[in-house]
Order: sequence, then structure tokens, then C-alpha cells
Amino acid sequence: MSSSFGEQVKIMIFGQSHSEAIGVVIDGLPVGEEIDLEKVQQFMDRRAPGRNAYSTPRKEADMPRVVSGLFEGKTCGAPICAVIENTNTRSKDYDKLKDLPRPGHADFTAWVKYKGANDHRGGGHFSGRLTAPLCFAGAVCMQILERKGIHVGAHILSIKGVKDTPFDEVHIDGQVLKMVTSKVFPVQDDAAGEAMQAAIAAAKEKADSVGGIIECAVTGLPVGVGEPMFDGLESRLASAVFAIPAVKGVEFGKGFGVADLFGSENNDDFTYEADGTVQTKTNNHGGSLGGISSGMPLVLRAAFKPTPSIGQEQDTISISKRENDKLAIVGRHDPCIVPRAVPCVEAATAVAILDLICRMEK
Amino acid sequence: MSSSFGEQVKIMIFGQSHSEAIGVVIDGLPVGEEIDLEKVQQFMDRRAPGRNAYSTPRKEADMPRVVSGLFEGKTCGAPICAVIENTNTRSKDYDKLKDLPRPGHADFTAWVKYKGANDHRGGGHFSGRLTAPLCFAGAVCMQILERKGIHVGAHILSIKGVKDTPFDEVHIDGQVLKMVTSKVFPVQDDAAGEAMQAAIAAAKEKADSVGGIIECAVTGLPVGVGEPMFDGLESRLASAVFAIPAVKGVEFGKGFGVADLFGSENNDDFTYEADGTVQTKTNNHGGSLGGISSGMPLVLRAAFKPTPSIGQEQDTISISKRENDKLAIVGRHDPCIVPRAVPCVEAATAVAILDLICRMEK
Amino acid sequence: MSSSFGEQVKIMIFGQSHSEAIGVVIDGLPVGEEIDLEKVQQFMDRRAPGRNAYSTPRKEADMPRVVSGLFEGKTCGAPICAVIENTNTRSKDYDKLKDLPRPGHADFTAWVKYKGANDHRGGGHFSGRLTAPLCFAGAVCMQILERKGIHVGAHILSIKGVKDTPFDEVHIDGQVLKMVTSKVFPVQDDAAGEAMQAAIAAAKEKADSVGGIIECAVTGLPVGVGEPMFDGLESRLASAVFAIPAVKGVEFGKGFGVADLFGSENNDDFTYEADGTVQTKTNNHGGSLGGISSGMPLVLRAAFKPTPSIGQEQDTISISKRENDKLAIVGRHDPCIVPRAVPCVEAATAVAILDLICRMEK
Amino acid sequence: MSSSFGEQVKIMIFGQSHSEAIGVVIDGLPVGEEIDLEKVQQFMDRRAPGRNAYSTPRKEADMPRVVSGLFEGKTCGAPICAVIENTNTRSKDYDKLKDLPRPGHADFTAWVKYKGANDHRGGGHFSGRLTAPLCFAGAVCMQILERKGIHVGAHILSIKGVKDTPFDEVHIDGQVLKMVTSKVFPVQDDAAGEAMQAAIAAAKEKADSVGGIIECAVTGLPVGVGEPMFDGLESRLASAVFAIPAVKGVEFGKGFGVADLFGSENNDDFTYEADGTVQTKTNNHGGSLGGISSGMPLVLRAAFKPTPSIGQEQDTISISKRENDKLAIVGRHDPCIVPRAVPCVEAATAVAILDLICRMEK
Repeated sequence: MSSSFGEQVKIMIFGQSHSEAIGVVIDGLPVGEEIDLEKVQQFMDRRAPGRNAYSTPRKEADMPRVVSGLFEGKTCGAPICAVIENTNTRSKDYDKLKDLPRPGHADFTAWVKYKGANDHRGGGHFSGRLTAPLCFAGAVCMQILERKGIHVGAHILSIKGVKDTPFDEVHIDGQVLKMVTSKVFPVQDDAAGEAMQAAIAAAKEKADSVGGIIECAVTGLPVGVGEPMFDGLESRLASAVFAIPAVKGVEFGKGFGVADLFGSENNDDFTYEADGTVQTKTNNHGGSLGGISSGMPLVLRAAFKPTPSIGQEQDTISISKRENDKLAIVGRHDPCIVPRAVPCVEAATAVAILDLICRMEK
Repeated sequence: MSSSFGEQVKIMIFGQSHSEAIGVVIDGLPVGEEIDLEKVQQFMDRRAPGRNAYSTPRKEADMPRVVSGLFEGKTCGAPICAVIENTNTRSKDYDKLKDLPRPGHADFTAWVKYKGANDHRGGGHFSGRLTAPLCFAGAVCMQILERKGIHVGAHILSIKGVKDTPFDEVHIDGQVLKMVTSKVFPVQDDAAGEAMQAAIAAAKEKADSVGGIIECAVTGLPVGVGEPMFDGLESRLASAVFAIPAVKGVEFGKGFGVADLFGSENNDDFTYEADGTVQTKTNNHGGSLGGISSGMPLVLRAAFKPTPSIGQEQDTISISKRENDKLAIVGRHDPCIVPRAVPCVEAATAVAILDLICRMEK
Repeated sequence: MSSSFGEQVKIMIFGQSHSEAIGVVIDGLPVGEEIDLEKVQQFMDRRAPGRNAYSTPRKEADMPRVVSGLFEGKTCGAPICAVIENTNTRSKDYDKLKDLPRPGHADFTAWVKYKGANDHRGGGHFSGRLTAPLCFAGAVCMQILERKGIHVGAHILSIKGVKDTPFDEVHIDGQVLKMVTSKVFPVQDDAAGEAMQAAIAAAKEKADSVGGIIECAVTGLPVGVGEPMFDGLESRLASAVFAIPAVKGVEFGKGFGVADLFGSENNDDFTYEADGTVQTKTNNHGGSLGGISSGMPLVLRAAFKPTPSIGQEQDTISISKRENDKLAIVGRHDPCIVPRAVPCVEAATAVAILDLICRMEK
Repeated sequence: MSSSFGEQVKIMIFGQSHSEAIGVVIDGLPVGEEIDLEKVQQFMDRRAPGRNAYSTPRKEADMPRVVSGLFEGKTCGAPICAVIENTNTRSKDYDKLKDLPRPGHADFTAWVKYKGANDHRGGGHFSGRLTAPLCFAGAVCMQILERKGIHVGAHILSIKGVKDTPFDEVHIDGQVLKMVTSKVFPVQDDAAGEAMQAAIAAAKEKADSVGGIIECAVTGLPVGVGEPMFDGLESRLASAVFAIPAVKGVEFGKGFGVADLFGSENNDDFTYEADGTVQTKTNNHGGSLGGISSGMPLVLRAAFKPTPSIGQEQDTISISKRENDKLAIVGRHDPCIVPRAVPCVEAATAVAILDLICRMEK
């Protein structure tokens, strides 16, 4: 335990990298909502590997089979279960790793925690592969959110120091999100995107990897989403986003930048808009005040560490010999997981947001 | 809802800034643990206002009354309830604010969410005052953790750009934590502390406020604490820490810095220590791999925005008149809440850690 | 753990029989609901001891102090906390019992479970006194339910074989419930009530005690309350009602009687009423089909064992001497707790029902 | 929502009677536990239809496919997911029922609750078929319990007034449970079993159905299992058992019988056994005192209503015509579901017990 999330809309993710299948059960969805499975598939394809030069050449057959929860194409009150078969797995690649924990991975911590009973193949339950069912759940939630006028979208904000144009946190809208997320390499500034891809290619050349930052926005949120304290927007979103492997930081609005500001700079003044709605002139708060949505775009950023699987030789330990050892990982791995992680951040965000919306008082 | 946190060790925080009392119920604590209430009080005093020039002169009578859950000084299996009376409150100060939501506060979002039924006085349930019961809960958990050799401590890493020496993330231990947290102004480098206090004083002079960053470490954690995915260390700690008002970012280990690193730089190699334990040579992962403790010190940082309550005139709206208006806040407020927030971060961390430890398999 | 209940409306009960105070926190209540505390007190008085000859002469000062969660008399989105002081406690009465566990009580099981750290005085957290905060929570929930046209009421169905007229499960309505619950001895047939009181008096005479059955109905429930499987009406109500000490059986509608029926007898045929609503002609299902309310009155019965505290000498063990011993309980105890348990069953029912209603989709 | 149960060991059941598949995810199981899938299958076969004259002739292919959570045959810390295909389904049988809700079923309540979006085929998510994944989960939990010396077993206590010999609540042990549960028709007194089967056959003859009572025992439980109040043994077990369709009553120990007893009769005196353990001389409390296991056998009984699907013509409504109508159900249905429900009660019990055991303090 525990691979489950949510209170009203609950998801439970199952599977290991090399088990027969992985998948997710989603309970508590609003009823009567049409789910376009082709659109779900398209969303999941954004996460799939093998789409370009810098991602792993494995071909995942990430075709979720929905075995329950839909009736005549709509949510029917019963939990949705989606099963994704694990077909193209080479467990042999991982045999050695049972003894030599990979630096930066959960091999060692899981081995101790589970007293050696964990499924080490491909990282087991801790594999990035488990973000596929998360993306399924997110895609389903997103369709329901969009029907309420709420859009979730993310782009790559930086990779190894190369920076994209940040979202305009005041004016960002669903159209912009749709545009950027439709790109194969989701950045606002394509030139920056080229430079990022060059940085990735260069790292790959050296059998190395690079990290980056993803920025995600939610537009169209009504005022009032989020519960006090531990179930505030930041708490819920952070706990969902930190569940994605490799995330080491999450911030909202101005984020860590607030530490260098005066209150007079950071405060976002309220104002009546021409249309009678209340807005803030700036959006340093990133759409959340007291953990509750303010009606401004919600903006969060997540920092991803470089892929820990690298071809270079690294120091590690041999569990069996109880001595220091060396390891060079030979499998197929992304030199940068950030591009494929973009839909994962959107998915985690969508799941957390829909849960909070469904928990609001009638 | 929901002001509750935890699965095995559950806390539920109640109260508003100006209700008769605030407090917390803690259920599921290990049994037979002696709780030294004087030590709890000392911990809470670190959060109390009025300790020095830069904190609000209000005298909170933060004397928790433990009405249940202890028997002959020890946890007895029944939930602990601690009640803290709200005595020195001047509700008059807030009358005006019912109509004029304060920028940077939850006044507006709570008003919309609760359709005007929220208790606006002093921010109601969203007030920073509600961190007092959090500190109570944290202090209780910390005594149980310390008996297991686990220490939690934090210091001010920066205020308005002035930086303290960061924790040595590899060698930090309980002694260092004890030392720094025993200071009235908890920094490692007292000269930096002087500069920070000068920055706060300067902001106060201008009726302004400043933000900062708190760094918190947990030492002595065994390997294996934390559950997969949504209940990983980062997810649980972030959801606890983001519940503290004003936190806008949380990061672990190298945090957002990982975005600029190569995998070969960021990975922490494993090695056998002379004493036979496995450690990592560096600690960029901040003590968590795959959401599970690695045995290295856990290091997290939280960014606090500048106190939103400032004396300068700000633009806001008048709810009753439905038009734009002006507001200058005249109450008593800290020009910087970071110093008082240090024990709050420790408390949130301790509560989340103890819950995870109690959820581990026997 | 765990003294908490509910998902959307959550309650957490704290306190021991002889701790400084007992109480409850209620989180997630609908907002803007006026709570008449005098009416709450009247409800709690129905549970209070000392109202007549057959109840314990202790005078509990069951005056709950609401320290949070109400603003201008209404729920405001923050958790309600009610504290009830423990004033009139004679711990001396229980000194002996630390060593000699009382048959039928939790003294022995709690002592083993908590390795001797439990608060044994008066049964500690397992005392029937803890139903006072449950009644507070129930009374609050009931006021909100009544505003929706939903009424909860119970009567004594039997005591030691003496039977009251059962509720008319098809035609029972709020008026009938109001009438019966307004009685000091809540039965439909007052002659039966006299006979029950005689049975109680006779038991008291012999330093013995008697049990009974309480029947509770909920009227005005819309169709659709209750979630599938583990969160069906029966599951949720049973888990709330079984939390009341001394309950050993819970049944719905025809209950255990269904075991002797044919399907053709037990099935309740659907029919359109003159007013266009769908009803069932009979109500053997007790208002729940598939765990979901049918629109018919919900009817449940709970069996209460005789008060385990009796004056007669009983066999037990001496923990200190590790040998068999004798015990005659000399404290003040009800020879029958059923009359005072009536509002407790209503309260547990109301809390569970309101939680389920608040969890329904908007 | 919500088809999930448990806090430390969590299960989530998915599927509808006629969806592609049904199944269950089990999270939080103890790690390193060998699971014998053949034994699981044998357990599930006890629930399968078509085993004898009085059960429905449908052939369910209740072969669960375990797609995750086991590694080298053992639990590995990742959730187990078992998928059971729905193959032999005749949806045509149910077309008519979309308009004519079956008396005694959830057709009507689900239709209103889900505003017509529910999957009505075969009762959808409310079908008794969903007890197959519950049995899977129970069989897995049972293997882990048995390794701790804890046995769960049930028998048919009565059908339509024909009674089996009740369990000897003081002396029942794992051997007796094993013996009775190994029978095709699990009763202690085979002559009674014959009479029960005759009663079922007679009901079938008249296109009618009959109900009954199942008695379940748990032996080998250590003292101390169960948490206070809402998570006491009775509360947890009742909420699990009431999740089985058709259960209308649950009682423990002497159950509803306590209402007719004196305290001096009902109390179970403690005594030291020759082997130094503490026992009670009688077991009217059914193994639970204050919601905590006493070390005596746990005994519960569940009342099952007669199968609501009967061939006789019944009155119902036509949803489309908004008028009264008639219905004679022609599908294949058990004239008595009690025999097949026996392993379901055991499974619900095992799941609830293992969860509570895993929640106990280390």
C-alpha cells in the first residue's frame, strides 16, 4: 500500500513493469459521462515511447482494454477498470540488477522495504511504466473536466538549462493549452524546443541523461475548488504529481521565487473585470489562495531529475557479495524522460482536480 | 472538509482564528509512549508570536489543554485531544475585512466557496493561527520519533535573498538539528541571521513584508519508510507541508536544481560504509528513492511567500458595493512569518513521517 | 485508532470515561446550516442518566461546549468541535477493576491490546459515556436532515421479552417518529412500556440487568442514497450502529425473518401511487435495495445485550495474581441501558445517512 | 463509489454482470506471502454455480487471471489484480428488465440513482456475480491468515426453517471448520442438509425461492484484533458482510438472543485455563468484547433473503409507460443462493479480519 488516490473519485493503480499487465480502477466518477476511448488513446500516445529520436525504441502496446465501468459508451456508476498488457518486456535485461541496485532508482529501497520479495524486474511497481495507467485515468477525467469548461495542459519549461517561454499566468486559456499540447515536442517556443532536443541528443551521445521542468496550467476552474488545509489545491496536486517517478520539486504560481519578493510585490490585487467577474491583476498566487481556487489560471511546475538509467559506469554495491561493485546499464532508456512526462503531469493534475470538484458541496 | 491528515496516525485540526478555541485530535498513536507536555510547550513556544522585534506583539496564550488520550502521562490508545483557548482576539480589527477581501489571503476564495457563511474574522479556519495545533501534534509525534532515534529539525535557509549555510545533506545529524533548533533565530550562520533580521526590520519600516525558504531535515530514518506512488515520502510530506499557509513550493534533495544536471552528476552512487551499512556518497536524492527512505538524511525545502497582510494601501474589491476599493491593513502582523514557521514545517514533517512509519508492515 | 467515521461528513470522537473531557470533531458538514444548540441539548438529555428510577443516579453535566465550527449560529465550513467536561467521576470506584477485568466489558481485551497502557478507569475509551459526543454529532446532523424533510426516530421494541408494537414499516412518518421520541420512555404502546419498566425494576432488585431491542426508522429519504457494495446503506448504518457499546445484532426490514420466507412472500412489489411516485406495497426490504434507498421508510433494529455491570458476584481472573478470582461490581450502573441507547441509535443513523447524502453526486 | 474496502489491506472490486470482465485489486497485503492459486481456485469453485441440482445451470468461467502483484508466486508489495472474464452471458435475457424493475432487486434504485445511466444488464454492478472477485480476495487473505493459525469457515445454519446444528461456540476449531467447508453442501448435520435441499427443491417446483442463515466462525484469533468504536470487529465485519447482496441481518455471539437474557446469564466469566491462557467459560459475546477479539472463537451469523428472481408473476411498474405492469422472470436463477453464499461470507470475513490484523500496532 498504497497505490490509490482520491476520496470521491478514487483511482487504484496496479501492475509491475514486467507483470502480465498493468492498469487502473477508477471509482466514483460522475455518471452518464461519455468517454471517447479514441481520444483517451491519443492522450496516452503522447506518453508512449518510441515517438522520436530521443525516446526509448521500445514499442509499448499501450492499448488499454476497458473491461468495466462503461455502458453504451458512458460512465454508469460502476468502477472503470482498464487493463494494459505487458507484451514487449525483456526481463533478461534486468537479471543482473537484482544484485546491483541502480543508483537513482528504487531498487535498493524497495529491496530493503520488502525484504527481498519485491519484483525487481524493470523497477517493478516503481517503474515509470506505471504512469501509463495514470495517463488513462487522467485522460478520462480530462474529458469530464472539459465538458465543464476546464482545460489542463502542460509544456516543457526547461531541459538542462534551456528555457521555453513560460505560460502567461494571467491570460493563458484553453486554446493556448490545446495548441501547445498538440505538438510532438510540447514547447511554446519551437526554437527553444530545438535547443532542448539538441541538449538531449548530446547527453545521449555521452551515455548520459538530462532533467528538466514541466509547467502545467488549469484554466476555467471556478472559484472555490479545494478544501482547507491538508486537502487544499497545493496539497492535493503536489501529492498527485510527486507520485510520478523522478519528480523532486513542485511549486505553484511564483513558487520558490516568492522567497525574494516583498509582500507589496507578491500580493495580487483584486479587481472587478468589465464582465463583472472578480480577478486578480497579477497571478503570483498561481490560482490558489488558502488552497482554494481563485478563478485565475492554476499554474504549477514540477522538476524532473535526469533519467537515472545511464550507460556510463557507476559505483554501486553487490547485495550478494556485500561489497562495492560497478554497474553500466545496458537496457533501452530515454536520455530524458521530460517530454514523455508532460501528459503524466497533466493526468495527475486532472485526477486531483476532478476529485476535488466532486467533493465540493452540492 | 477536510482538515484531517494521516491514515494510521490521524490528526484532525479544528477551530477558527476567533472561535472560542482551536485544537487537534490525534488518533492512532503508538501506545505506552510517554509524552512530556513541558517539552511540547517548549516546542510550541518556538512558534508563538511576540518573541522578538520582528514578530507580532500579540500574546497568544498557546497553552494547550490535553483533555484526553493520555493516562498516567502516556498514550493509552484513545485519541489525544488538545484544546487551545482563543483569548486575546480583537474581532473588531476584522470587521471591515468582511467586505474588503485582503489580497493574498483566502478571504475571497472562502467567501465564494462557502457562499458567505465562512467565519471571516482573522481569516477564520484559514488563519495561520491554526498551525498552533499542528505544532502540538508535531511535538507529540516528534517525542515518539526521537525515541526511535529519528530527529526532525529545520532552519531558515533564506529570507529576501539573504542566505544561510545549507544543511550538509550527507553528514547532518541529530546533534546539528538540536543545536540549530535551539536558537531563537534558527540559522546555521548567525551573521546571515543578523542580515535576515535586518531585512525583516527594513520591510517592517516600509509597512511591507518579506518571504523566505525553510530547510528541514530528518535524520535517523531507517531504510524503507514510505509507500509506493501516492503515498511516497515526497507525496505525503508535500501534502502535509503545503497545508501550512503561505507555502508555495516544496522540493526534496537537489530539488529544482536537478533540471540543470546530467544524470551522471545527479545520481548518488551506493557504497558500503566501514560499519557495513549501505549509504550513498552524495545525497542529491534527499533521502528518498522511489518515495521510500534510503537511510540518508531526508532533506526538504519549503518556500514561504511574504506575509500578505501589509500596512501599505492595496487595491481590492468591495463585495457589498460590487466595485473596486482600497484597503490598508491596520492589525498586528508579522512582517515575515518565516521564523515562526520553522517549527510548523518540522511539525508537518514529523506527523507525516510517524504516520508512514506506523503504516509499515510489522 | 480508529474512533472516526464518515467520508464526506467525518466525525472523530475523543475522550475516556474519566479523562478531563470527552467530545467530537465534525468535519465536512454542509455550510450555512443553522444549528439550534438548545435543541441539541434537548436531544442529548434523552441520553443523559438519572432521568428516572431505572437509570443510574449519576448526574452527568453533559453540556457540550461548542468551541469551533459555528459562526453566527451557522455551520461555516470549519470543523465543529464540541467538548463535554468530565466532572462527576469517581475513579476510586474503578481501582479494583484494574486487576479484575469485568465480564462482558472490554477491560480484558483492551488491557491485552494496549499492553496494559489503556486507561481502565470506567472502561476508558470503551465506556458507554463516549456515546454522549456521538449524540451531539447525531443531533447536529439530524437538524440538517430535517431541513431536507428527513426524520430519524427510534423506540424500544422489546426488553427482556416484553414487546412494543413494531413500527408500521409502510406508513410510518415523521409525525409518528416525533411523537414516540418525545416520550420519556419511548414506546408506541405505553402499557408495554410499563411492563418493560417493571422487568427492569425486577432485574435491579436482583442486582441483575436486562437487554432489549431498539427499532429505528428514517422517513423522507429520497431514492438513491447509498453507494454500491461496502458503502451500501446496510454496510454504513451497521458499522455506525455496531460502534455503540453492547450492540450484538443489526437487521434491516424483515431482518433475520427473511430466512423463513419464500421469495414470493418476501419480495416487495412496485406500484405507482396516486401521486405518481413509485412505492412498494410492502416493505420487507426495509427501505434499502442493493444498499440504495428505495424511497420507502428505512427500518433497522439493533439488539442490545444486558448491562454487563451487575451487582451479583461473578467469576473472573486476577491479572496480578494470575489466578481465578471473584468480583461483585459496586458502582452505579443502569440495570438496562436500552432506554438511554435510543437516541444513540438515532444519532449513529443520522450521522451515517447525512454522510451518504453528502457523498451523492450533485 | 464505493466498491472499496479496507484501510491497510484495501480491495477495490470492479465489473458489472455483463461487462467484459469483473475483478478485484488488492493493495497492502503483507509481503513475501506465497499464494497458492490452485487453492484459490478451489475456494472460488465453492461459490461457482452449476454444482448441483438446486443451483443455476449457468457455467461461469470463474478462472481469475492474476495480472499483477505476485512475483515468483509470492506477494511482492505491488497490488494484486485478478481479472475474471465474463463469457457466458445472455444479455438478451435482461432486455425487458430495463423497463420493468424486478421486485427485490436494485434495478429501480440504481436506475433512479444513476438517472438511467446504470448498466441494467443482469443487475450490473449490483449483481451477485460481483461476489466472485470478493471470493478471490477472501481466498488470498485466508491463505495468509492460515499461516498465522487463523481459520475462517462457515456453514448453512438454516434454510426456510430447517436448522443445522449450530457451531459449538466455545470449542469450535480449525479442524471442524475444515471438515464442514469441505462438503458440497456445508452443514454439520447431513440429515438437516438433506431436508434443506428438499425445501429448496420444493420451492423450485413452485417457481419460488427460499432464504436462510449462514453461520461463520473464526478460530485462532489472538486477543487484541479490532480498533475502538467504528472500527471494532462488529462494525468492520458487518460492513463487509452486508456488502454481499441479499444480506438483511448480521449478529455476533448470542446476537438478537441477548434481548431476552439477564446480564447474569449473558456475561461470560473469565477463567485461567490449565495452559495459562485466559478464556471465557461461555461465549455469548461471540469472540468480541468492546469490538476487540477476546481470544475466543469469533462467531457471526448473516441472514439471506430468498432469491428475489422468481418465475412466478409479480407486480411491478413500467418505467417507459409510467404505469403498473406484470413481470415473470424467465432467466436462470438459483432458487436459493445460501449454499453459494457460504464462501462469500467467509471471504468478506477474511478480508475484514486481515485488514484489522495488519492495522494493529507492531
